[in-house]
Amino acid sequence: MQSNIRIVLVAPLYGGNIGSCCRAMNNMGVTDLAVVTPQASVDWREAEVMAVHAGDILNTRKTCATLEEAVADCVAVVETTARRGLYRQHCKSPREWAPELVALSERGKVAIVFGREDKGLFNEEVALCTHLVQIPSDATYTSLNLAQAVLILCYELFLVQGQFEPIQEKSELAPAKMKNQMLKMWRQYLLDIGFMDDEKADHMMAGVQRIFSRGALTTDDVNIIMGVARQSEWARKNKEI
Amino acid sequence: MQSNIRIVLVAPLYGGNIGSCCRAMNNMGVTDLAVVTPQASVDWREAEVMAVHAGDILNTRKTCATLEEAVADCVAVVETTARRGLYRQHCKSPREWAPELVALSERGKVAIVFGREDKGLFNEEVALCTHLVQIPSDATYTSLNLAQAVLILCYELFLVQGQFEPIQEKSELAPAKMKNQMLKMWRQYLLDIGFMDDEKADHMMAGVQRIFSRGALTTDDVNIIMGVARQSEWARKNKEI
Repeated sequence: MQSNIRIVLVAPLYGGNIGSCCRAMNNMGVTDLAVVTPQASVDWREAEVMAVHAGDILNTRKTCATLEEAVADCVAVVETTARRGLYRQHCKSPREWAPELVALSERGKVAIVFGREDKGLFNEEVALCTHLVQIPSDATYTSLNLAQAVLILCYELFLVQGQFEPIQEKSELAPAKMKNQMLKMWRQYLLDIGFMDDEKADHMMAGVQRIFSRGALTTDDVNIIMGVARQSEWARKNKEI
Repeated sequence: MQSNIRIVLVAPLYGGNIGSCCRAMNNMGVTDLAVVTPQASVDWREAEVMAVHAGDILNTRKTCATLEEAVADCVAVVETTARRGLYRQHCKSPREWAPELVALSERGKVAIVFGREDKGLFNEEVALCTHLVQIPSDATYTSLNLAQAVLILCYELFLVQGQFEPIQEKSELAPAKMKNQMLKMWRQYLLDIGFMDDEKADHMMAGVQRIFSRGALTTDDVNIIMGVARQSEWARKNKEI
């Protein structure tokens, strides 16, 4: 049903949570699971018990060394977070994002990324994400169990299925790998031109990343933005000579 | 926040599920938990572990001998089910019911009832419920984990908070105890007048119950309906004399 939605668990701690995620996914018709470097503490027998009739999802999961690898072929990478702050103003709820994410999933893989139970996502992992989602919750206890968070995302996407008008666009959506290459190029370019210092680069690039995530970029778009960086570098160097 | 919403777990099997329910409730601002005859298999230590920061909800739970007792003061009793069938045509999704249930909760306690993990609710328990809700799910695997189902209900109710116009009604909503008394009276009355046989009484009363659950009954309403049964009985007996 939701064949282009991929659930990505980053370095999960508990087998029970992984199994419960599989069951929640199965309940909502999502079957593509990637687990990035599961921690040594994971009890895989417990995962099987909690998956109940969703053992197929557990058994066919992909195991990846990094988040970058897990989302390389994805046209959108959604960060789930309980935190708010700078560069998080574009955060929306699952219900707000769902129509757009389902529309994107008609055109390529969409990854929904869940951080470690204890430490969430590291900054270099956050930098790979294009969309930011926060599950509404009571202010006194905002941290949901991992499988509960997976359920809410899959449920909201499930309910949107078939209710949207697919966008007609000729160019294909750009995969994460291509967009990350573009951002690396821009980072280097912006450093080279003195737009930002080394120490402020992460901060600035979060802002740049946000701008490029406001809409869905096609490969044509990305080629243009990379072209801008390339050409600017060329012009700058040429002037120096 | 949602002080008039009560989660009722009927004879749960697993402590982990009970604890996870507490956490999900806490995430969505629901704090009133009643557990009907928890089974001997329940590991309460496991419940504590899974509740994490929701230990207060676990520790202040009410334990009841029957569902009837757990919902006696409730103006609405919502059955959660994965089954469809006769007398289930009035079933709606959590999102469809949520505005009405939140409006009702402004006027009295609303119980959301969850059956046993393995056997659901028994017929005499189903007969106590006034609303029927089914969580949308993929047709291949419709059975959600208990705590996952609790989360979806609490989440949908949480999102509706503050978005509805409270209904202005002078008479108070009738509590379950009063409505059940009314149904017992009607059952006896309908048997007495030969409207139904003993063996078809459960079946017929499910239909009657559904009719009286289409809208929210006030104490005035219930008094009228009981009056009808009482007066009809009197007239019938009087005629016999």
